[in-house]
Amino acid sequence: MSIPLSIAWTDGQLVILNQQKLPHEIDYLTLETIEDVYEAIFTLKVRGAPAIGIAAAYGLAVAARRHHTETVEAFLEAVQTDAEYLGQSRPTAVNLVWALERLLETVKKAETAEAGKALLLEEAKRIHQEDEASCRQIGEYALSLLEGQERVMTICNAGSIATAKYGTALAPFHLGSERGRKFEVYACETRPVFQGARLTVWELQQSGVDVTLITDSMAAHTIGAKGIEAIIVGADRIAANGDTANKIGTLNLAILADAYGIPFYVAAPASTFDLATRSGEEIPIEERKAEEITHIGNQPVAPLGTKVFNPAFDVTPAHLISAIITEKGIIQGDFQRNIPEVLNLYAGKGEKS
Amino acid sequence: MSIPLSIAWTDGQLVILNQQKLPHEIDYLTLETIEDVYEAIFTLKVRGAPAIGIAAAYGLAVAARRHHTETVEAFLEAVQTDAEYLGQSRPTAVNLVWALERLLETVKKAETAEAGKALLLEEAKRIHQEDEASCRQIGEYALSLLEGQERVMTICNAGSIATAKYGTALAPFHLGSERGRKFEVYACETRPVFQGARLTVWELQQSGVDVTLITDSMAAHTIGAKGIEAIIVGADRIAANGDTANKIGTLNLAILADAYGIPFYVAAPASTFDLATRSGEEIPIEERKAEEITHIGNQPVAPLGTKVFNPAFDVTPAHLISAIITEKGIIQGDFQRNIPEVLNLYAGKGEKS
Repeated sequence: MSIPLSIAWTDGQLVILNQQKLPHEIDYLTLETIEDVYEAIFTLKVRGAPAIGIAAAYGLAVAARRHHTETVEAFLEAVQTDAEYLGQSRPTAVNLVWALERLLETVKKAETAEAGKALLLEEAKRIHQEDEASCRQIGEYALSLLEGQERVMTICNAGSIATAKYGTALAPFHLGSERGRKFEVYACETRPVFQGARLTVWELQQSGVDVTLITDSMAAHTIGAKGIEAIIVGADRIAANGDTANKIGTLNLAILADAYGIPFYVAAPASTFDLATRSGEEIPIEERKAEEITHIGNQPVAPLGTKVFNPAFDVTPAHLISAIITEKGIIQGDFQRNIPEVLNLYAGKGEKS
Repeated sequence: MSIPLSIAWTDGQLVILNQQKLPHEIDYLTLETIEDVYEAIFTLKVRGAPAIGIAAAYGLAVAARRHHTETVEAFLEAVQTDAEYLGQSRPTAVNLVWALERLLETVKKAETAEAGKALLLEEAKRIHQEDEASCRQIGEYALSLLEGQERVMTICNAGSIATAKYGTALAPFHLGSERGRKFEVYACETRPVFQGARLTVWELQQSGVDVTLITDSMAAHTIGAKGIEAIIVGADRIAANGDTANKIGTLNLAILADAYGIPFYVAAPASTFDLATRSGEEIPIEERKAEEITHIGNQPVAPLGTKVFNPAFDVTPAHLISAIITEKGIIQGDFQRNIPEVLNLYAGKGEKS
């Protein structure tokens, strides 16, 4: 039993777990070129915002090793071009651009191309380590909130394989498993792409966590029949007022949690907050292609040409969220006020109460 | 455009629509022997409680034609044996046994085997016609409730092909289509068996109704984003207090309807009420095999050996139901009191107010 990892820097090489093959095949890929990294992100072999950022950061370092330029200026230009290329691999992923910009900022200090190559790799490793530490801390806070709660429901895969390690919503289960906590996790399969069935079930099994798969439609009955005590989910974007965009189906669960009187927790790193977005109403909801719903693999499950509505995310209003768990602390109550407080955004501005 | 039918008595033969092949193939089967009928019910080629009852009734009549006995007593014995055999094809289907018993009661009056054969066929046709009339009446009542409501959500297939014609929850859309009412129906795909995607979408398309497919997980977001004005579903069993067992996922929708303040309607014939069951707590929930969730066709979507919870139904408590629509009238308010009132169970007992 061990917590599965999606990215490793091993013997000077970038190795990723091919999530497209899960759960039927455990396939590790060594990414040797920038094109390999682009392709891995583009085709969802690496997925999950933090994991994409980490892979792209290593990708930039891997690519830089091949640049043999005369001057440091030419080297930096080549790295800039690489970053722009990688930034296109998944344009909506905020962490991707964030990680690449962080590396570009760092590499500027290099006085030689060789020094630049070393700086890029160091910074990529630092992003990787920071994300692991941050997920671990989210797990600790989540464990404290889940004290006395054993039967917990989740959706999608806010897991170890979507981050450096541990994940966000799944972090308390991995940590709890190491410490003998007996969680019973109910994983919603997460239509249309089955991240719950394919990824969360597999990941928790690897870690020795007791996990049961249900369809999304079974959530209400399961909460009642199995005595679910809490629901915990990840987040794609959190607005200034606490409204949270996450995988489609999350809002269903938040409304059910409210109806059954059980807590509904969102677990996400500070980088998920977008305080320029005032509320969920400002978050655009991506609509994806009909075939995701009408077909399973190549097999059609609906008449050809069926009209489909396929939103990828929904927005859970803040009033349905019991707490947002970040690596900087647990945010509760008046989110508008407490989000900047806990994220320590006022530090040094004398506004902190 | 026409309302699809699942059962027809044509040129002296029993013809059924093979629902296992839908929506990719429109395949009609002529059932010539009692074994054909048993197999069609057992393998879900015919499904939906009323349709199963009708098919079994015709099946008994079809089987009887082959009995060439010396005495009427021997004939009746053979019919009794046939009925017991057909009754085993889907033991949990209440309408199946109800229809067979009704035919057995009728055939008793026969003085010759030939007269008995005629009586059986007449009674089967009567059951068929009564169900069509009853669904039509449910459709009329539902249309009156849905006055001014265009955007309606449904789950599973409480449709024409589950009954003689029109269906229950889908009846208002078929009738409305004939009368130029512009409904926009949102069909939940209905995991795990996809009755919404495979059957409801196809059936409503055949009838010219504007239908959009969503996954069950999209229900909450869709209610908000598309302005859904009502939800209507069928029922498998309704207890004396109005608690309603229906396809898994129905309870999710009822809770969402309550949260969004839109009406939640149950449409079902009087035969669905089981007044010996006092409340939903007494309704046993069948659990089905794990492969329904872990596999799509032969394709696995979860790790092998995954632990699964697969309840086939859930129970919606009466307080979440705005109205129950039957062929005898619309039941609202105090269900405990009004169910027997509307079903006219007190008729002739002097208790009707």
